[in-house]
Amino acid sequence: MRISELSRVSGVPIATIKFYLREGLVPEGVRTSPNQAQYDDAHVQRLRLVRALVGVGGLSLAATKNVLGHIDQPTGLTLDLLGTAHQAVAPALPDEVDLTPAVSLLRRLGWDACADAVGSDDEGRVDDTLAGLAIALAALDDAGFVVEPERMDTYADAMMQVARAEIAGLPTETPSAAVRYVVLGTVLVEPVLLALRRLAQREASAARFPLSARDLLEQQPR
Amino acid sequence: MRISELSRVSGVPIATIKFYLREGLVPEGVRTSPNQAQYDDAHVQRLRLVRALVGVGGLSLAATKNVLGHIDQPTGLTLDLLGTAHQAVAPALPDEVDLTPAVSLLRRLGWDACADAVGSDDEGRVDDTLAGLAIALAALDDAGFVVEPERMDTYADAMMQVARAEIAGLPTETPSAAVRYVVLGTVLVEPVLLALRRLAQREASAARFPLSARDLLEQQPR
Repeated sequence: MRISELSRVSGVPIATIKFYLREGLVPEGVRTSPNQAQYDDAHVQRLRLVRALVGVGGLSLAATKNVLGHIDQPTGLTLDLLGTAHQAVAPALPDEVDLTPAVSLLRRLGWDACADAVGSDDEGRVDDTLAGLAIALAALDDAGFVVEPERMDTYADAMMQVARAEIAGLPTETPSAAVRYVVLGTVLVEPVLLALRRLAQREASAARFPLSARDLLEQQPR
Repeated sequence: MRISELSRVSGVPIATIKFYLREGLVPEGVRTSPNQAQYDDAHVQRLRLVRALVGVGGLSLAATKNVLGHIDQPTGLTLDLLGTAHQAVAPALPDEVDLTPAVSLLRRLGWDACADAVGSDDEGRVDDTLAGLAIALAALDDAGFVVEPERMDTYADAMMQVARAEIAGLPTETPSAAVRYVVLGTVLVEPVLLALRRLAQREASAARFPLSARDLLEQQPR
């Protein structure tokens, strides 16, 4: 198909497609003349993937390139693969982070594979996901927002259920399929989980305060 | 204490404190002379809260003001409150979103309180969290990333466990305490949950591929 049809089928404007082509996010079509190229279904799929990463994923162009690079040419697998995929989509983090509370939490949860991996990077880099947990815990602390150990266990248990289902479904046919699954599962499923949590809060709130919480709360002194 | 000590105790640079004061994110101290003011522990707490919202929360100044406004002067409660709090921290969303797949999912899950609330806003606005779910589902679809119904149930069940614990812990002493709990619980706990999911994936991966997944996968054709 020509670029005009590619645009129609994918729903992506021609100018945007040309930009993605220039940036190398979408591979060139097959030239049929100096001013024309033919595209196929693979281009449609790729365009949709780029739109999803840039849109909902909220990734920068650089991060999107990075993620696509991992999908196109996977280098590591499973633990490596997960680390690489997470690294590709992790936000930039400050250099100095105290990992102690995060590691203590992992030990308490019995997540020893994660806790043991601390500091094992050959180049001495701190794992971004672990650093992300440490920073998130520090922010709770800074804001004076106490999360009791039982609550943290609930969070960890819920996330472990999620993770077990996801890892059980990890495709092992090809490294490329595995990386695609992990990267997209990380970037695209996060907003689903967060939206479900917020909606579940409302559902649980309706169940806890079936009549009128407004009345209930207005009886309390302000 | 003076501003210099406030800076030392809170760990926030004086220039940043002055900026927050000008922007109204932190209340003025008590003037003791034209060039001096006294601050107290409430200022320290507030500074930490602002840092947490702007830092890990990743909120813009405008969103931070909005959130602080809800904490300082709560207007709605429970379902209203959750909606208001979520709205305050929700990202800007496109105007036109097809809510049908999101509502179908909620009905299938039996989350009828959420599904029933669709379109109930007096001003005809679409609920941002529901729209967020719809957009996230559409992005999965666009990227060709299939989440089977059983997997979606796992996600929903996990998030409902999280939400039940959170709503059970909702403080009802004052509306202000309730709003603070919901807003901070939304903004500050999200990065904790996402980091735990990524770490849980690695832990579950280590359990599924105990020996060497690299060997296992390298036997497969590329």
